[in-house]
Amino acid sequence: MAKNKSNDFNYSGFDNLSMSNIPSGSPKIWAFLIGVYWVSIVTYYSLWRAYKKVFSLRNMMHSSEVSRPQQYTVLVRDIPVSQEHEKRTEQVESFFRRVHPHSYERCMIMHDFSEAESLYNEREVASRKLEHAEAVFELSKGKPGSDGVRPMHKTGFMGLLGPKVDSIEFWTKKIHELTPQLEEARKKCKAEANEDAALVFFNERLAAAQAAQSVHAAYALEWQVEPAAEPRECIWRNMHLSAWQRSIRKPVVYVVTFFVVIFYMIPIAAISAITTLENLETVLPFIKSITRIKALNAILQAYLPQLALIVFLALLPKLLLTLSKAEGIPSKSHISRAASGKYFYFMIFNVFLGVTIFGAVFSSFKGFKVLIDQQQLSVSKVVELFGTKLPPVSTYFITYVALKFFVGYGLEISRIIPLIIYHIKRKFLCKTERELEDAWAPGSFSYHTSVPSDLLVVTLTLSYSVIAPMILVFAFLYFAIGWLVMRNSALNVYVPEWESNGRMWPHIHNRILVALLVSQITALGFFAVKKFPYTVFLIFLPLATFAFYLYCKRNFYKSFAVVSLYVASQPVKETPSMDTIVQAYTPTCLLEGDQFEDADFQDARSNMTSRTNSGIATPAERNV
Amino acid sequence: MAKNKSNDFNYSGFDNLSMSNIPSGSPKIWAFLIGVYWVSIVTYYSLWRAYKKVFSLRNMMHSSEVSRPQQYTVLVRDIPVSQEHEKRTEQVESFFRRVHPHSYERCMIMHDFSEAESLYNEREVASRKLEHAEAVFELSKGKPGSDGVRPMHKTGFMGLLGPKVDSIEFWTKKIHELTPQLEEARKKCKAEANEDAALVFFNERLAAAQAAQSVHAAYALEWQVEPAAEPRECIWRNMHLSAWQRSIRKPVVYVVTFFVVIFYMIPIAAISAITTLENLETVLPFIKSITRIKALNAILQAYLPQLALIVFLALLPKLLLTLSKAEGIPSKSHISRAASGKYFYFMIFNVFLGVTIFGAVFSSFKGFKVLIDQQQLSVSKVVELFGTKLPPVSTYFITYVALKFFVGYGLEISRIIPLIIYHIKRKFLCKTERELEDAWAPGSFSYHTSVPSDLLVVTLTLSYSVIAPMILVFAFLYFAIGWLVMRNSALNVYVPEWESNGRMWPHIHNRILVALLVSQITALGFFAVKKFPYTVFLIFLPLATFAFYLYCKRNFYKSFAVVSLYVASQPVKETPSMDTIVQAYTPTCLLEGDQFEDADFQDARSNMTSRTNSGIATPAERNV
Repeated sequence: MAKNKSNDFNYSGFDNLSMSNIPSGSPKIWAFLIGVYWVSIVTYYSLWRAYKKVFSLRNMMHSSEVSRPQQYTVLVRDIPVSQEHEKRTEQVESFFRRVHPHSYERCMIMHDFSEAESLYNEREVASRKLEHAEAVFELSKGKPGSDGVRPMHKTGFMGLLGPKVDSIEFWTKKIHELTPQLEEARKKCKAEANEDAALVFFNERLAAAQAAQSVHAAYALEWQVEPAAEPRECIWRNMHLSAWQRSIRKPVVYVVTFFVVIFYMIPIAAISAITTLENLETVLPFIKSITRIKALNAILQAYLPQLALIVFLALLPKLLLTLSKAEGIPSKSHISRAASGKYFYFMIFNVFLGVTIFGAVFSSFKGFKVLIDQQQLSVSKVVELFGTKLPPVSTYFITYVALKFFVGYGLEISRIIPLIIYHIKRKFLCKTERELEDAWAPGSFSYHTSVPSDLLVVTLTLSYSVIAPMILVFAFLYFAIGWLVMRNSALNVYVPEWESNGRMWPHIHNRILVALLVSQITALGFFAVKKFPYTVFLIFLPLATFAFYLYCKRNFYKSFAVVSLYVASQPVKETPSMDTIVQAYTPTCLLEGDQFEDADFQDARSNMTSRTNSGIATPAERNV
Repeated sequence: MAKNKSNDFNYSGFDNLSMSNIPSGSPKIWAFLIGVYWVSIVTYYSLWRAYKKVFSLRNMMHSSEVSRPQQYTVLVRDIPVSQEHEKRTEQVESFFRRVHPHSYERCMIMHDFSEAESLYNEREVASRKLEHAEAVFELSKGKPGSDGVRPMHKTGFMGLLGPKVDSIEFWTKKIHELTPQLEEARKKCKAEANEDAALVFFNERLAAAQAAQSVHAAYALEWQVEPAAEPRECIWRNMHLSAWQRSIRKPVVYVVTFFVVIFYMIPIAAISAITTLENLETVLPFIKSITRIKALNAILQAYLPQLALIVFLALLPKLLLTLSKAEGIPSKSHISRAASGKYFYFMIFNVFLGVTIFGAVFSSFKGFKVLIDQQQLSVSKVVELFGTKLPPVSTYFITYVALKFFVGYGLEISRIIPLIIYHIKRKFLCKTERELEDAWAPGSFSYHTSVPSDLLVVTLTLSYSVIAPMILVFAFLYFAIGWLVMRNSALNVYVPEWESNGRMWPHIHNRILVALLVSQITALGFFAVKKFPYTVFLIFLPLATFAFYLYCKRNFYKSFAVVSLYVASQPVKETPSMDTIVQAYTPTCLLEGDQFEDADFQDARSNMTSRTNSGIATPAERNV
């Protein structure tokens, strides 16, 4: 974004460059007004181009010759209670045979497989422990002049209590016990398939795409059909929540989120205030031995108050993910989007508004009085508040952005922390190949934290771009370096856990527009404070933003939520067999023939569905 | 709606019954608070029941064994420019054959037939004139001792200027000239079918229902598919407006409507003030001869100022219909809904708010000052304003409702005005059978005026039901008598021009909720003014209304906009032949074989499509 006024560079202080130095009523303000328009227009244009780009990528994926299981599948929720006492399968079958006579193939009723799942997980744990114990035994044999020491462990609480047993024997016995139990549970699951949700499979992509966007039942709360998520990103437990449950859970989660956004910082700030080194020493006297080391003492003095802040802020994304999951969303990518949205509002409120309002307004008694004096509160007052209080904090935010790319991207590109953790794990914990591999695994891209934090920088940049243009330099560096670093990370480091084919984009797009709107309202306030008589010209910008939002929504949004028929009608190289598709949608713990001996089978299967679906070569594949 | 407090009846004055008599802070206000809750709950319940009822009626119509042309048809708009220089028909054909390989049957490209239409209309006029002239000639023969007088007319401006010609000869010649021209224009139309909109026909209802709710093209502004309207309610000219045009027209019309709603009354009030009898006498001296009659003078004195008001208010619905048509809506029922919505807002603003605010606030200088003093304007002020100013005008509105049902329904049931007009026409104008029939025709139900005026009564009733419960008696009478009168009119008098299968209902539902919301905000203000400390309990009601709105929208709205697949999959008695369907969708002026001799053909055809579609027996059918 080229910006006016950013040419007259001056290192003596950022404030000299900001609009604060222009006297009230000066005709120079015209240049800033044009700047606001320029920023808005460039933003609209870039957003529109980006939407088009992401859109064509998405369509390319959906019309690719290689078909994927989710393209033949829809998720049906809220199946009503059958009037004719048929079995669920029969009911779903007869309904879909009637409505899609030419294309319906098969259905899979959801069922409660939590028992099988927990047994399966228990057996997985046992198998890993067994492997570990065997590896330890092998290693102990390796030492010269030793027959090897059979590893032992205690069976009680956390391996600290209870009788000591031979590990290899214990876990082998456990696995032999669990396998028939699991088989039993699997059989029971099959017999009890009667939840009010189902996956329905069609014989062509076109039919599934069409079914996913049609109202099926007369009464909208029954037979709700939506596109199925990729097999690997399904949240099975959320699929069979009833419409009623979902419509209760959603507002409850929203209210909880609202309170989290507003009040999360208050107890943390309080805890931070208390956790000084002195306080800790009185409560926990034994840490005095550490604090006696002078260098360590200095570091602790400085960072201990922030420690609570850092820990709680690190916990927040997890909390927001849990909250989003509690909404009843049935796919991981959607949960990630929902958590990202919540985190964005948290950041806007606590960082952007928090620093601005709490920092600047509450510092003076008058500002505080204006805010709490409800009778005097009006829209114009709030706009004015924004306008006057933003410039002083601009330097703070410029530093914030600079820090973010120096430290944040430095850590990201060097991956120093994962490296240290890996080496620690290798030294002390990992004994088997599998454990080493797991320790090395980079995980997946955490959209739910990186997207909102980038969006915060966008918000800051747009809001300060005209008032304090210096931020543009840092924002440019942030996004330029970010592009290089994150592109590398996405291509060579992280392994995508799921692929939503660009459904994150409308979410980002809308939030950038929110950021733009905030910046336009800010500009409105700031120009009004400068007593610039032509401030009224800025009124058109929020309207233009709203119109642009509607335009993009109308143009693109619906096609993003579903797959358009034309795209779905592209020919495929090979229609997958129905068995492959059904198998892909069977939870791992229920897969038939998944005997304990086929330990690698699960990996192979998840590879099959995950690698071909993502379309992005994982590092493992590249290095082969 | 049973209401508390309406028992202690007292005829000495309506004001005695209103809440104004309860002193501030009295515990009796609790009863009124419970009243507000009771009114809201009863409204929710009634609305929900009504929605369900209308919904099941709609589904009954759509799943009926008798199929209708629109059930096999979709309207496709915004067909992009073909890349391969094919003809439009080929382009649409190849697109739909690909996307709906099993069910696509035929397409009909829209074209500009305005020339054919105007020629056809001209010939229709000529044929009617000829009939009339022949009838006049026949009648003149009937007189004893007369060979008949051949009717003559002048060809110039409005039959007042120009040379005098023999009417029968003139119109016969005209018809013979027009018929070949019309044939020519029809042929030209066929050749030039290249607009970017088309009707697409399918071989089964299910396929059309499914196509109508799917996104067809990757880019949403291309190939927009929607359910086709009934043949008789199609607005052909609006069908081939491009997406771009529609997205410009809509906001422009909204802005114009906004100004009409706000400023329509001001010039009318000014005109009313000027048009007193004295002023008119000075401008038009000749009316003195009339005003000399004393009885007439008194009536004119009283009603002349209102005359302009009445005339302009009578013109308003026509203006709103024209505005709605200019939006680019392609069906008459939708235009009627859009005009009804606009009229509702006009009424709310000019009658409900107008009488309340302009009447009560502007009467005192202080109230006026509060309104214009923007800096002091806040939400709480507006709420307070509502609360204080509503009670004094309640008596006015009670009278308004009473007048509406005494006078309005009296005129409706007696149909005295149409009767007088018919007799005047029969006496002086109608000569042929057809003219007499047209004069007797009751026309169709004018939803765009009756719905908003009933909704205004709902708004008034809900807003005053607790404050001045006497209104409930009158509202009950209004709706009870209205039910009887309008039911009779709907069943025995009016001939429906189109049938939208209940799509008006969501529109009414939402506006009743708006009325409820207004009433809840009013109550909030009124209780606050009474300094009732538990007013805060009322805050939940607007939230409940919003939740109820979302609930109904989620449950019903989508199924109202489209036809659900299950409903469309009901078997039909007989699938109509494609030719019948295509013919039904051919504008009358383009029908082949519609020679002048087949004058009755058109009526027969419109009967076919209209009577069978409506499903409601017309009086003509009942009397047979």
